Amino acid sequence: MRVLSKDMRLQDVTLMYLTLLATLLVILVASYQTSGKQSARGPPLAYRVPLDPAGRLELSWNVSYARQEVHMELLARELRHGILLGMSDHGELTNADLVLLWDNGTTSFFGDAWSDSQGVVTLDRQQDYQLLAAHHTPEGFYLLFKRPFSTCDPHDFLFEEGTVHLIYATLDRPISSLAQLNLSLLQTGVQRVLLLRPDTPSPPLLPHQPQLDVLAPNVTIPGQETTYWCHMFELPRDMSKNHIVMYEAVVTPGNEAIVHHMEVFECSPETDRMPAYSGPCDSKMGPPELNLCRHVLAAWALGAEPFYYPADAGMPFGGPGSSRFLRLEVHYHNPLLISDRRDSSGIRLHYTPRLRFYDAGIMELGLVYTPIMAVPPRQSSFLLTGYCTDKCTQTALPPGGIFIFASQLHTHLAGRAVRTVLVRGGREVEMVQEDKHFSTHYQTIRILEKMVNVLPGDVLITKCTYNTEDRTKPTVGGFGIMEEMCVNYIHYYPRTQLELCKSHVDPGYLQKYFRFINSIHGDETCSCCQPDVTQQYNSLRWDAFSAEVLTSIYTHSPIAMHCNQSSAKLFPGDWERQELPQVTSQLQRPRYPCEDGGRPFTPASGTPTEVRTDKL
Amino acid sequence: MRVLSKDMRLQDVTLMYLTLLATLLVILVASYQTSGKQSARGPPLAYRVPLDPAGRLELSWNVSYARQEVHMELLARELRHGILLGMSDHGELTNADLVLLWDNGTTSFFGDAWSDSQGVVTLDRQQDYQLLAAHHTPEGFYLLFKRPFSTCDPHDFLFEEGTVHLIYATLDRPISSLAQLNLSLLQTGVQRVLLLRPDTPSPPLLPHQPQLDVLAPNVTIPGQETTYWCHMFELPRDMSKNHIVMYEAVVTPGNEAIVHHMEVFECSPETDRMPAYSGPCDSKMGPPELNLCRHVLAAWALGAEPFYYPADAGMPFGGPGSSRFLRLEVHYHNPLLISDRRDSSGIRLHYTPRLRFYDAGIMELGLVYTPIMAVPPRQSSFLLTGYCTDKCTQTALPPGGIFIFASQLHTHLAGRAVRTVLVRGGREVEMVQEDKHFSTHYQTIRILEKMVNVLPGDVLITKCTYNTEDRTKPTVGGFGIMEEMCVNYIHYYPRTQLELCKSHVDPGYLQKYFRFINSIHGDETCSCCQPDVTQQYNSLRWDAFSAEVLTSIYTHSPIAMHCNQSSAKLFPGDWERQELPQVTSQLQRPRYPCEDGGRPFTPASGTPTEVRTDKL
Repeated sequence: MRVLSKDMRLQDVTLMYLTLLATLLVILVASYQTSGKQSARGPPLAYRVPLDPAGRLELSWNVSYARQEVHMELLARELRHGILLGMSDHGELTNADLVLLWDNGTTSFFGDAWSDSQGVVTLDRQQDYQLLAAHHTPEGFYLLFKRPFSTCDPHDFLFEEGTVHLIYATLDRPISSLAQLNLSLLQTGVQRVLLLRPDTPSPPLLPHQPQLDVLAPNVTIPGQETTYWCHMFELPRDMSKNHIVMYEAVVTPGNEAIVHHMEVFECSPETDRMPAYSGPCDSKMGPPELNLCRHVLAAWALGAEPFYYPADAGMPFGGPGSSRFLRLEVHYHNPLLISDRRDSSGIRLHYTPRLRFYDAGIMELGLVYTPIMAVPPRQSSFLLTGYCTDKCTQTALPPGGIFIFASQLHTHLAGRAVRTVLVRGGREVEMVQEDKHFSTHYQTIRILEKMVNVLPGDVLITKCTYNTEDRTKPTVGGFGIMEEMCVNYIHYYPRTQLELCKSHVDPGYLQKYFRFINSIHGDETCSCCQPDVTQQYNSLRWDAFSAEVLTSIYTHSPIAMHCNQSSAKLFPGDWERQELPQVTSQLQRPRYPCEDGGRPFTPASGTPTEVRTDKL
Repeated sequence: MRVLSKDMRLQDVTLMYLTLLATLLVILVASYQTSGKQSARGPPLAYRVPLDPAGRLELSWNVSYARQEVHMELLARELRHGILLGMSDHGELTNADLVLLWDNGTTSFFGDAWSDSQGVVTLDRQQDYQLLAAHHTPEGFYLLFKRPFSTCDPHDFLFEEGTVHLIYATLDRPISSLAQLNLSLLQTGVQRVLLLRPDTPSPPLLPHQPQLDVLAPNVTIPGQETTYWCHMFELPRDMSKNHIVMYEAVVTPGNEAIVHHMEVFECSPETDRMPAYSGPCDSKMGPPELNLCRHVLAAWALGAEPFYYPADAGMPFGGPGSSRFLRLEVHYHNPLLISDRRDSSGIRLHYTPRLRFYDAGIMELGLVYTPIMAVPPRQSSFLLTGYCTDKCTQTALPPGGIFIFASQLHTHLAGRAVRTVLVRGGREVEMVQEDKHFSTHYQTIRILEKMVNVLPGDVLITKCTYNTEDRTKPTVGGFGIMEEMCVNYIHYYPRTQLELCKSHVDPGYLQKYFRFINSIHGDETCSCCQPDVTQQYNSLRWDAFSAEVLTSIYTHSPIAMHCNQSSAKLFPGDWERQELPQVTSQLQRPRYPCEDGGRPFTPASGTPTEVRTDKL
């Protein structure tokens, strides 16, 4: 621990462990010492995000898969009477797992707590966040602590792959007890991160690799909360085929907390001319051609690391068959309405003209963009499923199959969770990617922890969970922001002709559904002049019964397959009224050590750790 | 502990506690001593059942609600190399919670274990059965241990109200490790008990209360596994009205393990003559009039205590309007095929001519006995629900309502769980009775831990869970043993005219269901000549889809109510196409201490307790 200067408010930081049972003291101290070996503040932790839009709070962390724990360090540039960090399903202040530093005016405490469905804060009976260090520096106050991935305390969040919704707040006054804490009165915010990251080393780059900065130069960030900035970028006319081997974000210093995410889209290769544009994506002044650039080449979001392609593959870029035009989209998140801030952020592509052995490709899995699939209104958790059938993979994949190395999940606003699972011989054999806390506001291309080999005859099933509790009309599939999608863009190699492998329910079965529900409600109309399906969904009487039977229809009816080539044509074959893939055995979630009844020792259960200090 | 004589095989019984961490020793010993205060073998434990049909193994137990734990004592009249006692959902040897005593030839061990879905036995990582004493006596070997109701170990069974399926076995040879134990090679058996009992004291009886023994005298128990013995019993012709205030079993000594359960049925009061009969209930020689005696007056099953009526109520018996005839049914469970055994067991009714203030009554809740309600084939867990609506209770109950003091759940062979919940103002407010491990083979009238007051306007919802995995045809409702019922006979006072309050789905909605499913399968037949509903169920194509939609139809369609008077007529009013009662908030299961993350200290986790001995 560093030597602290005398003028600091936190004069003398020592850790003291209170225990209810004096007999446990020896064990506790022993366990603190053991874990203390790893925790001295030396080199900075691997990952870092600013939490608030002003960048006054910052979180860094390290992941240890070997020890199944995460070390976290909070930096508060100006600490007053405490800090709160929490995790909840989708960023709510209720039902959250909290870690807190607070003082009562004289003494400071550190503790593991939770908020109930009313937002009332209670200390966990089992303290699983373990304080490792706390000290002042010229940059601010540092608080270092750790927690296992899983604690088996029902009030603790489980650290697993996928989006984590962090909530944070600073305390501006002393509190004599946690019961006094009213979360709704605090200035709180949400920041999304990928807490767990694959721990495989990135393949090395050759020295002097060429790079291309796709930036939106000299943008004046609008003084509004949300801006999607579109910038058209043109490649040299005679550029030959290269392989992108890595890309990373270039963020203008000082704007780290505002530049929320960025994507680079390749435009349609058919178009040889595109107007120049740099402005808000939704501006009426924007050219309609922006919509022709939908093919994601690179995607970054706050806190994401550089993206490395596998050592033997690269993403084709330039040359015949590819577009000369790229669209850069930068999402500025500016809730403090800062104006006159300049920005020139973007994505840096590292590429090579010395082509790697394999071309990488992107394939769409999930549901066809069609109103035939819909989510009823007022659903807290409605599931839609898209299939890539054995027949399609048998038709389109090479004998050795393909290797998925990364994946980008995609829904619109109502999406809450997405997963794609690989099924072989009727059995779920591997999870391609799962995000139980998905948000449309945090879309990144995520490197898989382990490449997934998909063979001809395999099935890929993509499931999306939606919440439409705030909607009174059904939400049909489509491109609109209030319509929905269920897609997983998988990044794989070697590239094949299979551009998309998606499904929707057979429309004939859907018509039988409409007739049945209408007959139940006594609306047996003649169906000789059939209205369009969106209209049919909209005129249905929605209740628990019609929603349940819709789920049954979606879950058991035959499907129409879109097993499409790059030319947007179907592969030869019959793709209508296909039987649903059968799944006879489901993937078992691996159990954490604590779940077998063997729980790790816990520090002083139910008692906060006292941090001795005059005043924080 | 008693002083043991020298010739016993278990020469010297001492308990030794192994711990992985020496530092924990003090705490462990302290906790053993504390609990030891209650456990010295003094007065016999309150409840007792023979486990095996020969009565060689016997279980006694005490329940402490204050300490939320059960003390159990196993008596093995002949102990060889160990004993196994276990609990599983419905008496399976797989997925069972086990407590074991075993030896390896030289040393004996006691441990908490579990069997997986293959029957493989593993020691729990957390040892929750705590050994308290082990000693030999002239009667046999006694093993005393205890366990909390809830341990939060996922491998431990939760002790809660309702039927517990005990499994047992004796070990005939030493085993060097639990991995050697093959449950399928052991001689095992199942015994059902109510482990938890209400701890309210029974109301006192007056001295010299008259009693009537309804016995089947001098029966020669047939040498077959299962016999239902029917004995007709006639009351004196001029008997005036009395109140039954208590009843209890009278079991012929020596037959405790064979007399499995007994019921006394009152015959229909319309019949003034009944033939005498004493013989198997299903005999072709039996008179058909046996079927006129269906009104349960008393029911007892192995291990059940005497049944006391509340202090201010009694069950009417004798006098005008009641039948002079009773049918006693005795179920002999004789898997050892013992022959020539004589038995004169039955039920002893304690009654009084000094009538108590209230007449008690019995009311049927649940589903109407009708094929309109059915369970699809191959279902592992299918739910049927019967309603007693607010309109019916409003019509039929007195202003102060009724008090339910006991309840008898009833299904046929496919029933696995039954529960009745009280709903007031749309909210579940109280559980009347719940049995998550129900068996048609263990039907008793169970005194409720707390009387339930049902007011006019309240709703009673009865749910039954069925397993039809072994059936290929649908199971419709009805009286037959291969048909099903979902009934709760509630015992209550003051008696009202409401004889039954049951429901079934509206038949018109069911017809829409048949049409829809047949249209999905392309069987759109003309429905002008409608076949009967059993035939319609039988000719439906059953798959996951048709079963799911049937559940949706049952769960959301209007119902027909049977709100019947004792005269078997409906109360005046419209009882067809009634809206389903709405339930907006469900009863929360009370949480056990361990579930809040505060787990009680555990003895040596993962290590069996060594029982030092030369040879067991």
